[in-house]
Amino acid sequence: MRIEEDCIGKLPIDKQALYGIHTVRAVRNFPISHEPLDPLIIQSLIQIKKAAAETNQAAGTLSLAKQQAIVAACNQLLIGRHADSFIVPAIQGGAGTSANMNVNEVVANLGHRLNPTVKLQPNDDVNQSQSTNDTFPTAGKMALLQQLPGLLGAIGQLVQTLLVQANTYRDTIKVGRTQLQDAVPTTYGRTFQAYYHLFKRDLGRLQTAGEHLQLVNLGGTAIGTGVNATRYYQTHILTVLNQNTKLNLQTAPDLIDATQNCDLFVEFSGAMKTLAVNLSKFSNDLRLLSSGPQAGLGELNLPAKQAGSSIMPGKVNPVIPEVVNQVCFEVIGNDVTVTMAAEAGQLELNAFEPIMLRDLLANERYLQQAMHTLVKNCLRDLTVNKTACATAVEQSAITATVLTPYLGYMTTTKLIKRAMTAHISVKELLLKEKRLPATLIEQLFSPASLTQPRATKAPSIQNQA
Amino acid sequence: MRIEEDCIGKLPIDKQALYGIHTVRAVRNFPISHEPLDPLIIQSLIQIKKAAAETNQAAGTLSLAKQQAIVAACNQLLIGRHADSFIVPAIQGGAGTSANMNVNEVVANLGHRLNPTVKLQPNDDVNQSQSTNDTFPTAGKMALLQQLPGLLGAIGQLVQTLLVQANTYRDTIKVGRTQLQDAVPTTYGRTFQAYYHLFKRDLGRLQTAGEHLQLVNLGGTAIGTGVNATRYYQTHILTVLNQNTKLNLQTAPDLIDATQNCDLFVEFSGAMKTLAVNLSKFSNDLRLLSSGPQAGLGELNLPAKQAGSSIMPGKVNPVIPEVVNQVCFEVIGNDVTVTMAAEAGQLELNAFEPIMLRDLLANERYLQQAMHTLVKNCLRDLTVNKTACATAVEQSAITATVLTPYLGYMTTTKLIKRAMTAHISVKELLLKEKRLPATLIEQLFSPASLTQPRATKAPSIQNQA
Amino acid sequence: MRIEEDCIGKLPIDKQALYGIHTVRAVRNFPISHEPLDPLIIQSLIQIKKAAAETNQAAGTLSLAKQQAIVAACNQLLIGRHADSFIVPAIQGGAGTSANMNVNEVVANLGHRLNPTVKLQPNDDVNQSQSTNDTFPTAGKMALLQQLPGLLGAIGQLVQTLLVQANTYRDTIKVGRTQLQDAVPTTYGRTFQAYYHLFKRDLGRLQTAGEHLQLVNLGGTAIGTGVNATRYYQTHILTVLNQNTKLNLQTAPDLIDATQNCDLFVEFSGAMKTLAVNLSKFSNDLRLLSSGPQAGLGELNLPAKQAGSSIMPGKVNPVIPEVVNQVCFEVIGNDVTVTMAAEAGQLELNAFEPIMLRDLLANERYLQQAMHTLVKNCLRDLTVNKTACATAVEQSAITATVLTPYLGYMTTTKLIKRAMTAHISVKELLLKEKRLPATLIEQLFSPASLTQPRATKAPSIQNQA
Amino acid sequence: MRIEEDCIGKLPIDKQALYGIHTVRAVRNFPISHEPLDPLIIQSLIQIKKAAAETNQAAGTLSLAKQQAIVAACNQLLIGRHADSFIVPAIQGGAGTSANMNVNEVVANLGHRLNPTVKLQPNDDVNQSQSTNDTFPTAGKMALLQQLPGLLGAIGQLVQTLLVQANTYRDTIKVGRTQLQDAVPTTYGRTFQAYYHLFKRDLGRLQTAGEHLQLVNLGGTAIGTGVNATRYYQTHILTVLNQNTKLNLQTAPDLIDATQNCDLFVEFSGAMKTLAVNLSKFSNDLRLLSSGPQAGLGELNLPAKQAGSSIMPGKVNPVIPEVVNQVCFEVIGNDVTVTMAAEAGQLELNAFEPIMLRDLLANERYLQQAMHTLVKNCLRDLTVNKTACATAVEQSAITATVLTPYLGYMTTTKLIKRAMTAHISVKELLLKEKRLPATLIEQLFSPASLTQPRATKAPSIQNQA
Repeated sequence: MRIEEDCIGKLPIDKQALYGIHTVRAVRNFPISHEPLDPLIIQSLIQIKKAAAETNQAAGTLSLAKQQAIVAACNQLLIGRHADSFIVPAIQGGAGTSANMNVNEVVANLGHRLNPTVKLQPNDDVNQSQSTNDTFPTAGKMALLQQLPGLLGAIGQLVQTLLVQANTYRDTIKVGRTQLQDAVPTTYGRTFQAYYHLFKRDLGRLQTAGEHLQLVNLGGTAIGTGVNATRYYQTHILTVLNQNTKLNLQTAPDLIDATQNCDLFVEFSGAMKTLAVNLSKFSNDLRLLSSGPQAGLGELNLPAKQAGSSIMPGKVNPVIPEVVNQVCFEVIGNDVTVTMAAEAGQLELNAFEPIMLRDLLANERYLQQAMHTLVKNCLRDLTVNKTACATAVEQSAITATVLTPYLGYMTTTKLIKRAMTAHISVKELLLKEKRLPATLIEQLFSPASLTQPRATKAPSIQNQA
Repeated sequence: MRIEEDCIGKLPIDKQALYGIHTVRAVRNFPISHEPLDPLIIQSLIQIKKAAAETNQAAGTLSLAKQQAIVAACNQLLIGRHADSFIVPAIQGGAGTSANMNVNEVVANLGHRLNPTVKLQPNDDVNQSQSTNDTFPTAGKMALLQQLPGLLGAIGQLVQTLLVQANTYRDTIKVGRTQLQDAVPTTYGRTFQAYYHLFKRDLGRLQTAGEHLQLVNLGGTAIGTGVNATRYYQTHILTVLNQNTKLNLQTAPDLIDATQNCDLFVEFSGAMKTLAVNLSKFSNDLRLLSSGPQAGLGELNLPAKQAGSSIMPGKVNPVIPEVVNQVCFEVIGNDVTVTMAAEAGQLELNAFEPIMLRDLLANERYLQQAMHTLVKNCLRDLTVNKTACATAVEQSAITATVLTPYLGYMTTTKLIKRAMTAHISVKELLLKEKRLPATLIEQLFSPASLTQPRATKAPSIQNQA
Repeated sequence: MRIEEDCIGKLPIDKQALYGIHTVRAVRNFPISHEPLDPLIIQSLIQIKKAAAETNQAAGTLSLAKQQAIVAACNQLLIGRHADSFIVPAIQGGAGTSANMNVNEVVANLGHRLNPTVKLQPNDDVNQSQSTNDTFPTAGKMALLQQLPGLLGAIGQLVQTLLVQANTYRDTIKVGRTQLQDAVPTTYGRTFQAYYHLFKRDLGRLQTAGEHLQLVNLGGTAIGTGVNATRYYQTHILTVLNQNTKLNLQTAPDLIDATQNCDLFVEFSGAMKTLAVNLSKFSNDLRLLSSGPQAGLGELNLPAKQAGSSIMPGKVNPVIPEVVNQVCFEVIGNDVTVTMAAEAGQLELNAFEPIMLRDLLANERYLQQAMHTLVKNCLRDLTVNKTACATAVEQSAITATVLTPYLGYMTTTKLIKRAMTAHISVKELLLKEKRLPATLIEQLFSPASLTQPRATKAPSIQNQA
Repeated sequence: MRIEEDCIGKLPIDKQALYGIHTVRAVRNFPISHEPLDPLIIQSLIQIKKAAAETNQAAGTLSLAKQQAIVAACNQLLIGRHADSFIVPAIQGGAGTSANMNVNEVVANLGHRLNPTVKLQPNDDVNQSQSTNDTFPTAGKMALLQQLPGLLGAIGQLVQTLLVQANTYRDTIKVGRTQLQDAVPTTYGRTFQAYYHLFKRDLGRLQTAGEHLQLVNLGGTAIGTGVNATRYYQTHILTVLNQNTKLNLQTAPDLIDATQNCDLFVEFSGAMKTLAVNLSKFSNDLRLLSSGPQAGLGELNLPAKQAGSSIMPGKVNPVIPEVVNQVCFEVIGNDVTVTMAAEAGQLELNAFEPIMLRDLLANERYLQQAMHTLVKNCLRDLTVNKTACATAVEQSAITATVLTPYLGYMTTTKLIKRAMTAHISVKELLLKEKRLPATLIEQLFSPASLTQPRATKAPSIQNQA
């Protein structure tokens, strides 16, 4: 054991440990769960330490030897060495100070171990020109940005799959339904296309919200004033960091603002929540349209992915949309957590960034993986039961809606009632009663007529005052 | 009493009433509260009826006489006549059908009353080429868009007021606080500027989300297929409607999608929620910084607006920020309602648009009015207690942070501890102990040095490996 | 105009107005919406003023003449006179001070008007021994308690109606469904009985949470210390108030606690939210089971309550469950508002009681009315399509589940697959293949056997190791 | 590799694996996160398998040899052997079928391995008389109940600690604050006692909601009908299970209801949410009252637990309450997730139990651990700055509230204004102006008089009409 000291007092630390006293205190203080801080935040903090060392050296505030030791340590850590040295928990008090200090300590000790002639002080050297106030939210945004392409890619896959299905079933006519009651017909081509357009909007929303996350407060140090950093550092740190990470970060126009306000997290959470709402609605539709196999709507055949019941043989359930639904509920709940944490920020800092980042990072992964399994295990091999769909349209009384420009709403209403009572289709009744020319009737009840606007006006009887 | 009939049966209706059987049924079916449907939705539906009549006449599917009767009726209703004819409740089942039919009936009956030679059928004539599926969400978006300038204007006022206060208190130094503990100093100029930048982002977010609401599904009729409308109508209706309303509506690229998905409402709600989070955080800060008058922080003087207590004489409370907080909680709760309602949409329609629109329209008004009273009754006449702020900075041990580039983190920590024990300021202790040149000490503890980056590197002792 | 003065300054007040300067300031300060404070809160505050006057007189701290004037004024106000004097808005800052002062002023001025020889001071006389800190939350709880029997009664009606329907359809066999896929059969008797038991639990939850609301902090005056009240008042005020109102209020065991903590509101909101979750699930089921009329499940016939479409003739929608769903979304959103408002309380008071009470009172009414229309306009006249239900059970392959104790899970799985491929029922296939005795087959596929445990063990083949 | 087959098809399985084809499919279908199903749910399912084997054997539907093999396997698994065989993810579709089948497969294979003469079929033998519909929610409730004593114990610790602190600081007078403005005084004894009473109510709420979780649907098999179980099994299974687990489970009165409705989860979540609201409010107060050390309220000294800043030396932050706040935000967000998942249940089953159980189990642990660190690392060693508190009371003008029964509200208001302008205390001003006898003044401004009701009436001047 070695003894370390901080402003609180002394503590024995495992001799081999790369972390130090601040880290050990954090582990004791925050025994909430066994979930460690997200490795992407750790990696991003290390990238910041490395870029800061390079910038500080260029600014003349850090010696070359120290810079080299820090960079050497960071490089080892960035390839995954000593990953077990990062032990601070995901849910932590202190606005991320423990996370930042865990990294400062490990870099300092590892740097010294790699070059024993250099002694590195975690705060003065590794953390030079930095504060948890700027490094932690910046690292959090970096982590979110690193996961973003995966999320956008998954939406892209979903969008592409929907387009393929829209083309496959372009002309497959089906009953439309509003309020779960039969409505005028549409086609599965249009149905898939509607989802396609929906998720393309989500792609746009997340791209926009994601771009906003590129604005960071690095260089702001404590509360965004930039105190203890040099002007050189403040204007060069992002250049170096961007060279190393390709994340295209930009300095926020107001560092005080960027340090204390978490609206960009709320905005990003809101964009993910909107995606979750849409995915959940889509999953609900998939489950409903594939209900059956006998006592349900039976329009869609979802690929069978596992036996559905431990007691009912042969049962197959829509397990993929079901897991998507659950992910969406989680994402929506997490949005409330992010909202409350952002609202609770006080004065010059929001102390609740750790829980926000945890939930945001989880949401990104959950949504990506949910769409991944939805595309791969459900949508790609989904088929439409064309015959059942066509039969349902033929039997549907509500197709008589096309008659109202010719016969009026009330007359058509009565016609439908009579057809349903007689258990024949409205078309049959019409042909029998010879109210309208047979050719017109055939034309009106054709798929083209049933599912789109008329090219010309109807010579309707009610158009006279 | 007159007797009317629909597909359900017959009902006696008050002879004088402009509304008809569908309206009366709705009132009986939805006795949830006494809150009527938002007048802006009614007005927007009337605008749609008027524009539809003009377009249908041009398309040749409505006689000139009928068009003129409809337009005449709409014009009277648009100037507020017969407002008591719109009696359907705000919270209604049926995806807005009752709202649409209330307007159809009133327009038909009033048109006939204005020109008794013309008989108008609510569905065939007034509702011609329309469905509740397209008119109701379109009217809802029109209502939201009509209130939007007021909301944006209120943010604009807030932003301007903050800028004025930022200029007024540009150089008023104050203690910064992170996690409610004293941190390095900042100025009230920067504090107000940070809020200024924050709310400017909200302005941008709401403008963007608002523009998206301009995409409407009018012309889609039932479920977005456009069935029973003419192609002429579909391509001309928005031109006419925009001429009449100046709302710059555009036809959504996919009408099926635009009819069934409510993501634009979720997005708009999310933007308002983000504003609410920011306003609530700001209000919390105002209340905290003005706490006292004796046993609080006492930095801000909010204008006294009313006696604060029925029992404690002389007490004055921050009632304006308090009412803002409450509005924000309401808006955040309503966002959950909108989220759930949007998620619950099924297949070709979302039946829960009425509650979404109710809450969204309420949120717009609440936020506008909350910012209005915040600016007028609190921010404009707010003053800063400069002396108290300056004194607090002088006494603050944490200003010693500026010493760390010179003395190192650990040495500075001990210095602070000693100063606090001795009940003197760190600066005094430093001068006494002569650790650093007196001129450097004076310079370091100057406001400029305490609140911004250093122009040059520090000749610090610890910068040697 | 008369001039009034408070600690802020002077203000002209309408000469005829019964309210005074505090009220006018509130109206100016809180222009959030046109919604007035809930009349039940006003009435409850008046009851408190009346009981306080009686108790203070008995304590010897208020003259008989003043008491009589106050009581006379309260009695007039309690029967609805001068209701337009209560003009403070529902959403108000100040923790209810404006509401309390509006009542104090009106009572004082009306008391003086009724007996001009008595001069009443709003704070010293009408508000004697009281603070907004205790009167406002107490009045809020009284309002909630007054609405509670209506809410419980509506649940009671729902529960009774479900029991009647359970009896009516006791033996109506139907397909059970899990995850929207066909499962083993059940009966509509059991289906309605399950909802019956569900809502009986809600009744219990709301009764319990409601009883907790009877604990009030009246007598606590400012922050719960009881300062400026007499011990006599503190121990007698609830006796008098209970005599007048029959609300069975009790003094909270810790008045400091009862003044600052709003957990009882969160608890009550949570009980209403749970009811909302259940009602929404029930409404979803009703809409799903009545889907059709042709391309849906078609098991339930909800009574037709209005024409369902302005464009599609003959369409009838489940508008009653739809409005219930929307109420439930609103209640769930309001629960988030109440949660945030309760969490935001600070130190000795929660300043955000006005928004909590507004949303809680609205929730009570919404839920009561939603259940009222659900029972009256939907459940009572709902019928089950018995033939369709029976046919679906006969055709359902999943009934073969009863074979697994005899044939094993895997053999049964294959049997089902073969039956479905051959488009015959499993029972038919079994009889054809003579795997089991015909009498056993008939017995196994009887409703009794399909829907309950076996009385005895099965002589199953797989029960040997 | 061995080949297994189910109703979907064949799959190669690792020869050594105790799990089988259903488990492998689940892992492929639900790649949402690396979080495994909660071990407590697994353990509870194993307990159910063991009790079911014993009960089935007694019912005569399972051979003794099979029973013994199943029990032997369960006993090994219950002491933690083969824990790595349980690989299904926490977030899974299928309403828990994968979880149940993972256990069925492992028990069957392990039982066979332990006694190779016995061949066990996962569905027919291990899952005999069971369905995922009843085993999974029952196991979930068992898991929640197993964690409940820990949660209740942590509340108990909190309550006890608050009582100790209430006694320690019984007579420490302090300024009360409403709406963050100075109010009448109170004592820290009362302050801690108020929290004590608050959390005692949480204890009661969680006990009640926890007891409700003891009602389970085991024996209901598929959808609660009990199909394929014997009556013997249904009436004896809980007796056996309770003997083995001491969890005091009871059969729900309506198994159909208990299978499809998740209101008990919503209720339990609501009770945890209420606790979270209270803990968050308490943490907010702790952070506020300990703000400083110089520019804050400075009434409380929280024990220093770690260095508070990587850049600001000597800074110490309230990190323990901060982590509690974050836990509370997470719990409140999870309550929304549980709410949505419960609402989304359809017909005879709620397919979304996995996400509900995951979040509920997490909430139990989070809250327990948050209170644990709050008590241990913050409350026990917290001290009150008595001198500062007393000085603040002396200087507080609002103590003049006690004068209003003697001088009236308006006169006292003016007195306070004059005192504040003159920068002297109201008491000093009073003594100087000799408005009241000096002894009365001393008595009125004594702690006893300032913080409780008067024993007798005041001989007040305004008590005459």
